[in-house]
Amino acid sequence: MTINTKDLQTSGASRTIISVDAMGGDRGPAAVVAGIGLSASKNPAIGFIVHGDAEVLKKLIKKRRLESVCEIRDCLGVVTMDAKPSQVLRNGKDTSMWSTIEAVRNGEATVAVSCGNTGALMAISMIRLRKLPGVNRPAIACLWPSLSKSGFNVMLDVGADIRADEQDLLQYAMMGASYARNGLGIARPRIGLLNVGTEEHKGRAELKAANDLIASHAEQAGIDYVGFVEGGDIPSDRVDVIVTDGFTGNIALKTGEGTANLISQQLRAAFKHSPLSRLAALLALTSLRRLSKRIDPRRVNGGVFLGLNGTVVKSHGSADETGIAAAIKLAFTLAEIGFSDKLAARVASSAASPQDAQEMGNLDGNQE
Amino acid sequence: MTINTKDLQTSGASRTIISVDAMGGDRGPAAVVAGIGLSASKNPAIGFIVHGDAEVLKKLIKKRRLESVCEIRDCLGVVTMDAKPSQVLRNGKDTSMWSTIEAVRNGEATVAVSCGNTGALMAISMIRLRKLPGVNRPAIACLWPSLSKSGFNVMLDVGADIRADEQDLLQYAMMGASYARNGLGIARPRIGLLNVGTEEHKGRAELKAANDLIASHAEQAGIDYVGFVEGGDIPSDRVDVIVTDGFTGNIALKTGEGTANLISQQLRAAFKHSPLSRLAALLALTSLRRLSKRIDPRRVNGGVFLGLNGTVVKSHGSADETGIAAAIKLAFTLAEIGFSDKLAARVASSAASPQDAQEMGNLDGNQE
Repeated sequence: MTINTKDLQTSGASRTIISVDAMGGDRGPAAVVAGIGLSASKNPAIGFIVHGDAEVLKKLIKKRRLESVCEIRDCLGVVTMDAKPSQVLRNGKDTSMWSTIEAVRNGEATVAVSCGNTGALMAISMIRLRKLPGVNRPAIACLWPSLSKSGFNVMLDVGADIRADEQDLLQYAMMGASYARNGLGIARPRIGLLNVGTEEHKGRAELKAANDLIASHAEQAGIDYVGFVEGGDIPSDRVDVIVTDGFTGNIALKTGEGTANLISQQLRAAFKHSPLSRLAALLALTSLRRLSKRIDPRRVNGGVFLGLNGTVVKSHGSADETGIAAAIKLAFTLAEIGFSDKLAARVASSAASPQDAQEMGNLDGNQE
Repeated sequence: MTINTKDLQTSGASRTIISVDAMGGDRGPAAVVAGIGLSASKNPAIGFIVHGDAEVLKKLIKKRRLESVCEIRDCLGVVTMDAKPSQVLRNGKDTSMWSTIEAVRNGEATVAVSCGNTGALMAISMIRLRKLPGVNRPAIACLWPSLSKSGFNVMLDVGADIRADEQDLLQYAMMGASYARNGLGIARPRIGLLNVGTEEHKGRAELKAANDLIASHAEQAGIDYVGFVEGGDIPSDRVDVIVTDGFTGNIALKTGEGTANLISQQLRAAFKHSPLSRLAALLALTSLRRLSKRIDPRRVNGGVFLGLNGTVVKSHGSADETGIAAAIKLAFTLAEIGFSDKLAARVASSAASPQDAQEMGNLDGNQE
């Protein structure tokens, strides 16, 4: 019934295999399979290992005629959104999330995608994939729509760990730079450290220490360190990579998404206000679609776990099929450019020469 | 040449006097006087004491024919944006900022407005106005456009202090509730504590402690405590008051503003894209203006310092005349409802009965 990984790889010549957790998202497996369908229709070069309740998945996959690109791994356990990471580590071996990471660990898939519980996903990833030598705290990096030439800025950590000392922040700067080079094609990324002001005396003690530390490593690492940046600079053209601790980064990310959602809602309401504004909306349809595509948080869905032996993409818990497809697209891009190995080399050389200079790949490319 | 405060008060029957720092903003005294002009044209019930270089101010005020509503206080010193608060406390007695606060301390004005250096303004306010008995850390509260019925949510602290322990956070909850009652007319404000997740085990230790503390005081204080909220909830209808430390709050505030600015820019660009979209923009002009008014951060310009003997409104450093006028409007509203006394009573009763239940006033009212 289900095909095995070998079939997947051979049938698609050189398919890139993505391991997908079908359970645990707010919208359940139907949305995940719909997202797989969307991806598959746009990019035939992806094969999927899909983890979850086989009974349910078989029906969903059949309905969308995805049998030839999907292999099902039956797992009965589901990590709930409110599960504690420590509990999941103890009792979560039968879950779809665990199985999803295991496929990357075994080398069956190149990248894992899950829209489940972030804390549990990071905990399982750390235990099963292990941290890269030299990395203290892995981080989650996200892409932020921006005025920069690439259209995106990288921000990290957005939620792997609520703490970060100056050494962690330095490492985030280096990992973020590698992501910007490989993912966005920026040869010499501009790095900023998030603070409540740009003056050097402001902020917490660890931020002042990190400010000095990153500055002293900038030349050697081939980055432009721009110093402290503020919340308003996150979507600006002043920086390519914004470095912060996971508590602050998570709040900023969700605040930005919340603001964008509020404005989108009100924009729609404004255009339904009168017959004249409805006519206007019709005339401006293309422009509005372009804008909405640009600011829609679903289109840049996917936080990437950095600092592990293997790549994991965390999709938004509430992602719909568009969001899931965006996360899969990101996973595919990272797999294609061999990001995991490049990042490992970069961390191993502990901020030496910029040897992971961009070779290819732009996350806003055509692959889907 | 310049009229004195007594004249100001008598000439306008019962004018409310606002003390305005004309220096120290990014755009200089011309923008501040322009903002005063805008306010004066909309609301004849305000008198102004304007602090700064008298030579410069005299010309600006004369040009706009504001002599009858403005008294000038000559001060040669200016607090720069990068000045350290400690330096300003030592050597800043001749500055326009110091003089602005002094007018509130002396009872000549009811509320002070400045768009200068936030840290210095808070330091001078704390030294000259002093903290309310029982308040450990004063906070800066801002209004956030939201889906709530009042159209705004209150968030605090957005930058008075980068630290806050559980007792501070409890006090912020009580002060924020008083602000929401008096400023927004919400009888029983819903209070949320900003965190990286809504589950009880998430976040830093002081947040877990504050969560318990605020919950245990909610009934007595006449508030609805909704528990942890996330960044995405800030502009939502789930809460009226968002409580956080000044570091996180400042980052969130500026991130929200940055996102709104980015989208506004792109919206304008979208409507200039083609002749058709320009026509559409023309047709949708009213709707777009309504939207832009709603999301324009300048229209809700003004952080209020809470926890002092006297009210101080901190305008955005980069505020233009629209922003300055919004800050003055906010100052006027707070002066009219006697907010300073009500807050003091609330803090004195240390979270007792909701005796400062709303009597009047809505910050989105008609006064300007």
